[in-house]
Amino acid sequence: MSKFVLVHGAWHTGAEFEPTAAAIRSAGHEVLTPTIKGNRPGDAKTAGLAEAIQSIVDYFIENNLSDVILAGHSYGGMVITGVADRVPERIRRLVYWNAFVPNNGESLNDMVPPHYVGMFDAIHAERGDGSVVLPFPVWREAFINDGDLALAQSAYDRLNPHPLKTFSDRISLSRNPAEMQIAKSYVNCTEDTALPHSFSWHPRLSEKLGLFRLVQVQGSHELCFTNPARLAQALLDAGRD
Amino acid sequence: MSKFVLVHGAWHTGAEFEPTAAAIRSAGHEVLTPTIKGNRPGDAKTAGLAEAIQSIVDYFIENNLSDVILAGHSYGGMVITGVADRVPERIRRLVYWNAFVPNNGESLNDMVPPHYVGMFDAIHAERGDGSVVLPFPVWREAFINDGDLALAQSAYDRLNPHPLKTFSDRISLSRNPAEMQIAKSYVNCTEDTALPHSFSWHPRLSEKLGLFRLVQVQGSHELCFTNPARLAQALLDAGRD
Amino acid sequence: MSKFVLVHGAWHTGAEFEPTAAAIRSAGHEVLTPTIKGNRPGDAKTAGLAEAIQSIVDYFIENNLSDVILAGHSYGGMVITGVADRVPERIRRLVYWNAFVPNNGESLNDMVPPHYVGMFDAIHAERGDGSVVLPFPVWREAFINDGDLALAQSAYDRLNPHPLKTFSDRISLSRNPAEMQIAKSYVNCTEDTALPHSFSWHPRLSEKLGLFRLVQVQGSHELCFTNPARLAQALLDAGRD
Repeated sequence: MSKFVLVHGAWHTGAEFEPTAAAIRSAGHEVLTPTIKGNRPGDAKTAGLAEAIQSIVDYFIENNLSDVILAGHSYGGMVITGVADRVPERIRRLVYWNAFVPNNGESLNDMVPPHYVGMFDAIHAERGDGSVVLPFPVWREAFINDGDLALAQSAYDRLNPHPLKTFSDRISLSRNPAEMQIAKSYVNCTEDTALPHSFSWHPRLSEKLGLFRLVQVQGSHELCFTNPARLAQALLDAGRD
Repeated sequence: MSKFVLVHGAWHTGAEFEPTAAAIRSAGHEVLTPTIKGNRPGDAKTAGLAEAIQSIVDYFIENNLSDVILAGHSYGGMVITGVADRVPERIRRLVYWNAFVPNNGESLNDMVPPHYVGMFDAIHAERGDGSVVLPFPVWREAFINDGDLALAQSAYDRLNPHPLKTFSDRISLSRNPAEMQIAKSYVNCTEDTALPHSFSWHPRLSEKLGLFRLVQVQGSHELCFTNPARLAQALLDAGRD
Repeated sequence: MSKFVLVHGAWHTGAEFEPTAAAIRSAGHEVLTPTIKGNRPGDAKTAGLAEAIQSIVDYFIENNLSDVILAGHSYGGMVITGVADRVPERIRRLVYWNAFVPNNGESLNDMVPPHYVGMFDAIHAERGDGSVVLPFPVWREAFINDGDLALAQSAYDRLNPHPLKTFSDRISLSRNPAEMQIAKSYVNCTEDTALPHSFSWHPRLSEKLGLFRLVQVQGSHELCFTNPARLAQALLDAGRD
């Protein structure tokens, strides 16, 4: 039996990982799905990246977690990288699922195309509470391209505004991921166009891990909605020793 | 129920789309498979790109088509882009299946490797009627690599000589595809080597669409022969709202 | 009925191809799995590339082989390219399975990332008998990423030290693969990270073949261990006319 902690992406909470978690539990494992500070109901949308990371470090300590397979989705890659830097002794393996892989001093915005940064800034300025949301057409076509319109809409309705500061803050790490003495895997959904394929998740970001295990699976950036059982299998293949 | 118009590629006619169309009709939709001017039995092989586009615009008007999911294969991408520029109000969504995506002023030849242009020119010079054909070894290895030899041969026997002028003519558009206010999808067959993967359909050409939905499916450039049911499903996934 | 000769990669012998060969034989074909000089039990680890190639040429002559579908895996691509240059009249088609494709004067080391060359040189210096081995973590994560740990270990235990000289020797060819008048296919396992995907098997090396047939299949560099039946089907699809 292994112990998985699944860390969600921007606009999500841990609840959206529950169908995936249930499928992993069915295979006999323990799975936890915390929500990062800034995405919990009632959270102020002014949280920065350091607070986001600290909230998951705190979760590890409060729950006395060790020997964890720590998986992060998308923005969650920023968070698990920071957690691995703070409490490496509690982690058995890092699993990035179409996730950002930062080196010391990089922000999420440093790894996305400039037109995304411009779009986020414009939406942020309009909202005025520190948050950014994703326009539905972008979500439907580029994030959840493998679902039908009804699922795209119902999933969109569950998203929460995301604190933009977590995208622009630079991460502070004592060592880059490639130098971390922790096993690492990268799960790549082959139809994930949340980042354009000319500016890819894999291999552009995955190879920043140094030696890592690649698992690929058909699906979009939102396989947690469109095929959570398939995602669960990919996370199991990525997470095993 | 949706209405699909499937526009074939070079050397093909609408008839080669019929097995795919039948599978889409089985799912409850209407499907039309016109043949572009220059590829119809008896057509002179001197037609240019503007005439080719106009023939499909005429087809829309004569049949009073609206709310159409307009799909184009390969060279058909040139044609549907031109049609979308002329009669955007009749189109619900554009679907490119391993198809060329031209900006204003570009020709198909601008998007293929130089050695293809040279090969086409040499064959055209030899034939002398304005047409070009594809050498069987290129067809067998690079276009229909997922079929067996018997299917490769029987499919090849159905092809018709193609007017080369449609490859060298530059398209005239009032706006580029990325600026068109029409929903767009791109179906990419992952083993399609009709264009070399170092000079790819996706993402090199697909990303010229701006925001678009990616659907990927295993198969060659000629999935309409090798697995029309699978192609039909991809077109349905690409064509839905 | 076709006749296949399967040429293994570095650290392997022909025996590791036997489950794949058995599946091809079940489809009615003849399959031979020779072991290259330098990898046979008792071989000195000082063999160079020319000796390796000559050992397979000798195998062809001793067994009076002709009309052969000659497949090579990884380093085996160096060997089959050399064999095809020496005895082209005996070969019906070349099949490269995630294999190196050398032009005249190139070595295997010319086609791998510099950090691999450095790693190999360091291990070679330490061993002192001319051989190099692959560190288990590299094997487990980057070569056999689709297997479980038990299979990764049992497969690793079957490997033999490989003569490094075969990696640094430059091949001598009378013509480059693209100019060879032999049909060619390339089987690409889509999760093969034995070479990083930013420095890829396909299309970086495959396209050196000129006109070739692409067959892609899900799996790692060691599909001969993790799914030999699937590999057999890919080799059949690649090997047919």
